[in-house]
Amino acid sequence: MAFSPALTQLIDALRVLPGVGAKSAQRMAFHLLQRERQGGRHLATTLEHAIATVRHCSECRMFTEGERCEICANERRDPALVCVVESPADVMAIEQNTDYRGRYFVLMGKLSPLDGVGPEELGLGILRERLAAGTVEELILAMGATVEGEATAQYVGDLARQNGARISRIAHGVPVGGELEYVDAGTLSQAFSGRRPV
Amino acid sequence: MAFSPALTQLIDALRVLPGVGAKSAQRMAFHLLQRERQGGRHLATTLEHAIATVRHCSECRMFTEGERCEICANERRDPALVCVVESPADVMAIEQNTDYRGRYFVLMGKLSPLDGVGPEELGLGILRERLAAGTVEELILAMGATVEGEATAQYVGDLARQNGARISRIAHGVPVGGELEYVDAGTLSQAFSGRRPV
Repeated sequence: MAFSPALTQLIDALRVLPGVGAKSAQRMAFHLLQRERQGGRHLATTLEHAIATVRHCSECRMFTEGERCEICANERRDPALVCVVESPADVMAIEQNTDYRGRYFVLMGKLSPLDGVGPEELGLGILRERLAAGTVEELILAMGATVEGEATAQYVGDLARQNGARISRIAHGVPVGGELEYVDAGTLSQAFSGRRPV
Repeated sequence: MAFSPALTQLIDALRVLPGVGAKSAQRMAFHLLQRERQGGRHLATTLEHAIATVRHCSECRMFTEGERCEICANERRDPALVCVVESPADVMAIEQNTDYRGRYFVLMGKLSPLDGVGPEELGLGILRERLAAGTVEELILAMGATVEGEATAQYVGDLARQNGARISRIAHGVPVGGELEYVDAGTLSQAFSGRRPV
């Protein structure tokens, strides 16, 4: 005895979602069929549409439906300043919380040789071209402070150095509102080595 | 600045899934577009197909593509014995772990007036008809031992009593392999009041 074919297929297909295992997939399938048929139909259409139309911006690799994303197409954003981030969510976070007016380059991941993610997968060929064109004056490294993030920053930094761009790194240290005693050792040591005269 | 329209719509549409909030929906959308386009396309097709074809069995309300589910269509399953459960997953659990050879009735939920789930939403009209037809000799109540489960069992039990069917309830007590000292008070008290001569 198993679920009917269409239901079994739906449960299997849902497991493509990150963090969704057998039990959650089953719960999702029941929920969609029992209470959210309209929402489910909408999800199917939207998903198909997004997969068919969303691609990478030819300049920064951000997700977009056009040839270039909103930011790269905006002439008022400074092309001499490029901030390199790991994911589209990072672009959103920077846009919403800072007054940064330069452009971006979205890696869509970080170097991770064990997972088969090398420079090619991160689109670093495109970044190299942008750097070689000579318009980029400063490259801001804004990867996360993880082991892979550091390795990626190192690699991208070398690339920029070879092409004569200035390189900077966003500051790592004690978070604003954070108590010193609860900050971990690595962060505290970064905060000290990165101290600035006031 | 926001994500491109198709991406924004996809993130919104994913929130129809149970337990998926803004952050998870975003992570799912990125994952599908970045690494699982084929799986995503397959999910869209499968979801559309399931919503279009899966319906409730006319006798037991189990999800099925046919008029009747596999179990109700099986002449060798005893129609005089009906087990009432809350969800399709319960049917699977009973089928895989017991040698029960009767039929089922799937409530697809439990009584919960605050959420607008009354007898009508649980398809109890269909169960009443089955009981009134006089073929059901014993109704086995197999709801979970929660407050709503108890209330639902009470209601369904009354319905069966009015129609002259015998009623039984699956045993609640100490789980097999469980240590007495870790069992909660309610379960232990049920285990005592439900003791049987050996």
